[in-house]
Amino acid sequence: MAKVGVILSGCGVYDGSEIHEAVIILLALDRAGATAVCMAPDMEQGVVNHLTGEPVEGAARNVLEESARIARGNISDIAKIKVDDIDALILPGGFGAAKNLCDFAFKGTDCDVHPEVARLVREVVAAKKPLAAVCIAPALISKVLGDDKLAHRLTIGTDEETAQAVTSMGSTHVACPVREFVVDQENKLITSPAYMLAGSISEAADGIEKTVRALLEMI
Amino acid sequence: MAKVGVILSGCGVYDGSEIHEAVIILLALDRAGATAVCMAPDMEQGVVNHLTGEPVEGAARNVLEESARIARGNISDIAKIKVDDIDALILPGGFGAAKNLCDFAFKGTDCDVHPEVARLVREVVAAKKPLAAVCIAPALISKVLGDDKLAHRLTIGTDEETAQAVTSMGSTHVACPVREFVVDQENKLITSPAYMLAGSISEAADGIEKTVRALLEMI
Repeated sequence: MAKVGVILSGCGVYDGSEIHEAVIILLALDRAGATAVCMAPDMEQGVVNHLTGEPVEGAARNVLEESARIARGNISDIAKIKVDDIDALILPGGFGAAKNLCDFAFKGTDCDVHPEVARLVREVVAAKKPLAAVCIAPALISKVLGDDKLAHRLTIGTDEETAQAVTSMGSTHVACPVREFVVDQENKLITSPAYMLAGSISEAADGIEKTVRALLEMI
Repeated sequence: MAKVGVILSGCGVYDGSEIHEAVIILLALDRAGATAVCMAPDMEQGVVNHLTGEPVEGAARNVLEESARIARGNISDIAKIKVDDIDALILPGGFGAAKNLCDFAFKGTDCDVHPEVARLVREVVAAKKPLAAVCIAPALISKVLGDDKLAHRLTIGTDEETAQAVTSMGSTHVACPVREFVVDQENKLITSPAYMLAGSISEAADGIEKTVRALLEMI
């Protein structure tokens, strides 16, 4: 039974993991007979009111505790996860991937990646285990692999500004429609646009389900 | 295009809507070509740390704002939703259905149902529009229909204590395995155990997907 790490970044599209993407990943893994190993960094995050879309000034939550909502409590601090604990790794999107797992949403191409997230991504790539990222999460992968001068291909959909940013960080960007995915066979890297482009949950689900299938086939 | 009301109760199994159940409902509706009309009461809720399972003393969040995380901001105060706005209604579970939409988790069979939730459930039943509830949410339906002395059949799975409680409130309880659902044809009421019994997300999804299909066929 394959064990697939899932890096969560909170709970909610504007300040955490995109909930639909995360749940669709968990369901696709379970239906394929794989075990999800949910994890998140133990750190503070800002809070956005999802009714208004406005930041809540002065409010803070804990990324691991909020991610535990999606994982129904079955989650670990990413600092405790070793590459040997998993056969593959996947990152859902949501602003948490660009605000908590890294700060791409604030600093763009000058962003820093959370050290434990960068560590596990590097270890997975070095171990030749497959890695997937959807929505905005490929920007984080771009930063880590770009800093390592590792040539790779990925997609963040069709948004030109974001495509330009990942190109600057060292990726070869491949435009991709919402229900599809991009495979970098050499690096075992799979990416899909999901809510970077999706106008509906089923559009996101189609691309994510294909991504999970491709990820598991690469193990 | 059918419009299906989805009553959310927060965001997280221990103090809000069960996230997996809610997302599986939204995906099943969208894939069937139906439009989800998400709603929640505008009220305070308690907070449970989902990492430890312990209540967070003194903490409070707003049910409508937290539910907006699942709905990606596309949600209304239930007080503003009229029965004419929807063709059918569905309630995911999670403790929010038993702590926020009603207080069954605290008071058992003596529980009170949030007045706007009770109002919409009554209007949907009176209009002969189909109504579905999964996990613990059928306990709320039991209270509303039981108080109205309306004979009806539903399931909360196989838990004997909860089955006894809904029987006391006026339901005929039908035991049901996790991947199945129970139909009360006369009242157009469909229920499924989901995480009352599910040991995995795909078990919950199988029953919920069948429930949504049956709900849409009854419109």
